[in-house]
Amino acid sequence: MKEVAVIGVGQTKFGKRRDASLSELAVDALKDALEDSEAEKREIKFLSVGNFGLSSEDITPAALVAEQAGLQGTTTMRCEAACASGSAAFYAAWLAVSSGIFDIAVALGVEKMTEVETPTMIEILGRAGSYFWEFHEFGVTFPAYYALYATAHMNKFGTREEDLALVAVKNHKYGARNPLAQFQNEITVEDVLSSRMIAWPLKLYDCCPISDGAAAVVLASKEKVKELGVDTPVWIKGIGVSSDTSTMGNRANFIGLRSSIEAAQLAYKMAKVEAKEIEVAEVHDCFTIAEILAYEDLGFCKKGEGAKLIREGETEIGGRIPVNVDGGLKAKGHPLGATGVSMIVELTKQLREEVEPSRQVPLKKYLALAHNVGGTGQYCYVTVLGR
Amino acid sequence: MKEVAVIGVGQTKFGKRRDASLSELAVDALKDALEDSEAEKREIKFLSVGNFGLSSEDITPAALVAEQAGLQGTTTMRCEAACASGSAAFYAAWLAVSSGIFDIAVALGVEKMTEVETPTMIEILGRAGSYFWEFHEFGVTFPAYYALYATAHMNKFGTREEDLALVAVKNHKYGARNPLAQFQNEITVEDVLSSRMIAWPLKLYDCCPISDGAAAVVLASKEKVKELGVDTPVWIKGIGVSSDTSTMGNRANFIGLRSSIEAAQLAYKMAKVEAKEIEVAEVHDCFTIAEILAYEDLGFCKKGEGAKLIREGETEIGGRIPVNVDGGLKAKGHPLGATGVSMIVELTKQLREEVEPSRQVPLKKYLALAHNVGGTGQYCYVTVLGR
Repeated sequence: MKEVAVIGVGQTKFGKRRDASLSELAVDALKDALEDSEAEKREIKFLSVGNFGLSSEDITPAALVAEQAGLQGTTTMRCEAACASGSAAFYAAWLAVSSGIFDIAVALGVEKMTEVETPTMIEILGRAGSYFWEFHEFGVTFPAYYALYATAHMNKFGTREEDLALVAVKNHKYGARNPLAQFQNEITVEDVLSSRMIAWPLKLYDCCPISDGAAAVVLASKEKVKELGVDTPVWIKGIGVSSDTSTMGNRANFIGLRSSIEAAQLAYKMAKVEAKEIEVAEVHDCFTIAEILAYEDLGFCKKGEGAKLIREGETEIGGRIPVNVDGGLKAKGHPLGATGVSMIVELTKQLREEVEPSRQVPLKKYLALAHNVGGTGQYCYVTVLGR
Repeated sequence: MKEVAVIGVGQTKFGKRRDASLSELAVDALKDALEDSEAEKREIKFLSVGNFGLSSEDITPAALVAEQAGLQGTTTMRCEAACASGSAAFYAAWLAVSSGIFDIAVALGVEKMTEVETPTMIEILGRAGSYFWEFHEFGVTFPAYYALYATAHMNKFGTREEDLALVAVKNHKYGARNPLAQFQNEITVEDVLSSRMIAWPLKLYDCCPISDGAAAVVLASKEKVKELGVDTPVWIKGIGVSSDTSTMGNRANFIGLRSSIEAAQLAYKMAKVEAKEIEVAEVHDCFTIAEILAYEDLGFCKKGEGAKLIREGETEIGGRIPVNVDGGLKAKGHPLGATGVSMIVELTKQLREEVEPSRQVPLKKYLALAHNVGGTGQYCYVTVLGR
């Protein structure tokens, strides 16, 4: 198993991107990632494409993206793990290099969601759960799945609607400092609490948006990093993945995601680090409650103490473990296939100390963590990065 | 890069499987593959799922299949490369073991196509080409894409409709001997020539059917093969992959698939074998012309001599290079995501000399080749297996 580093990253602006097609978004991100790396396009022989699909007329996007990017002939495939599709593509590219078969590989994530009409994106997402029972028979949509977690957490630990709102407020605060974010406006707790009810206790501002966008990363083996003379390689220290039932009715409880807990343990073990050593994290805040669950499931605090963490400002810059200081899914946006790759883009820039100064996290150990959930925890991919 | 072997294979019957859901088909194939191997279910920590999608209500099938198979917690993702999705899953599982991260992994391919109503499967498949121009603007469907290749080949090399028909006759002959095949009836050249015209010169019997089905293979590292005491491991000697433009109008010519030629060369190079050493092959005969192109692109004969090969019986058992002696896509069926995995299942059984005696190929060097095309050559995966 070879050591693998991130040597180039690129990302488009997330948001309503009526100006660009799926492949145009992909090519933009890829171009940026290649320019950011020391690699030449002709060296790229492996390209994995994270894409959920169903939201585009391009139903087999990997070859299309390869072609548009001038990477025809590349070994390519689409990787899909629902909302963790970007992480699945990152995982495949990591395998490709760690196996020694390729010394360089690209993982690209892309999604075009805002132009979907029929069936609506809400229905498509709802079908990503337990289709036959919970969506079709009982009409449970995605916000409702997470509302089950929110109400259980509130009931057991006294988490309040105001705590959930604080997550949205924090993530909008940092989104406003990130030029690539979909939402660049700060909001208040009152804005969140008074926004339209979606699935109690989740209101409109507790939910991440529907987004278009793409992100890409170039990976290289240790030998290739040396050969190219890369200044600041960011090493993949550990990756853990787990999966869980699609059926909410079969989950053991609603106060955390089993797949998050398992994936984090695997990643920490491979990276030989502890949760408390992580200095900056990207976590899967598709809904505000999801970020609070993640704090606990990833070991940033004990189970039940997530609300306390956000209340005390510990997940802001200056706090114990700054989380989603690029705006997160909530404010940066959540183009499904792009999200997992975008997390790696952000953390690579953080570890290189290259983000906007107003949202750069101060680092000592240079250890970062990405946490990407697929569905309501059917998939979880956790990656530990370090300098 | 670790050596990897196939240590267990399983497959459902292909065909109209109204009796089983997508996950039921998957679980059946997986159960057979695990029973065929010496591995225990609890040892499986990686599961890649080849599935084209759009043909099923289960839109994120990997976690669903893992759950139904009792493999919750596994590292899992869906792999998609159009009609080569099964090979993409096989490739991912191969990477997972060759990297040393897992000592055992499962690749599973599954598709449920026969119950699709709106949009029809013909439209879905047509969209897998160049959607905007060639499908949407000009109405080119999948048989029409391959008809372009057939007419070019006929024009340049004098290939006849009767030669195409011979491919269907051969594949039905062997399908009739394969209890897992969708069609188990022999047909004549006259049957093919008089069947309904689809896209000249391709008639109904020149086209593979729409199918349901699943196939699974268990892969293991050399160390694990020893530990388990596997009697007849089948080694993955080489894999080559290439990709090409989706747009037919951009192809250099219509007498062969560039991605097939490139993928084959890569696979032969990695395996350190030559085309003439291959003793049994599975090739992608989605249409009869595709099998003739494959003979040439894979180097079983010179360009332009494919029709001669089938005419002279060289691709039957007893000939120089028996091809698709399980019925091929044409008679065994073509459940998109399952096809690439099913090819590995068949060749593993051939190399172990375990298929029905009436279709067992006599072997000396024990070298086999699988060739799986995605779209009209947007993807091509070639695998060389050996004892």
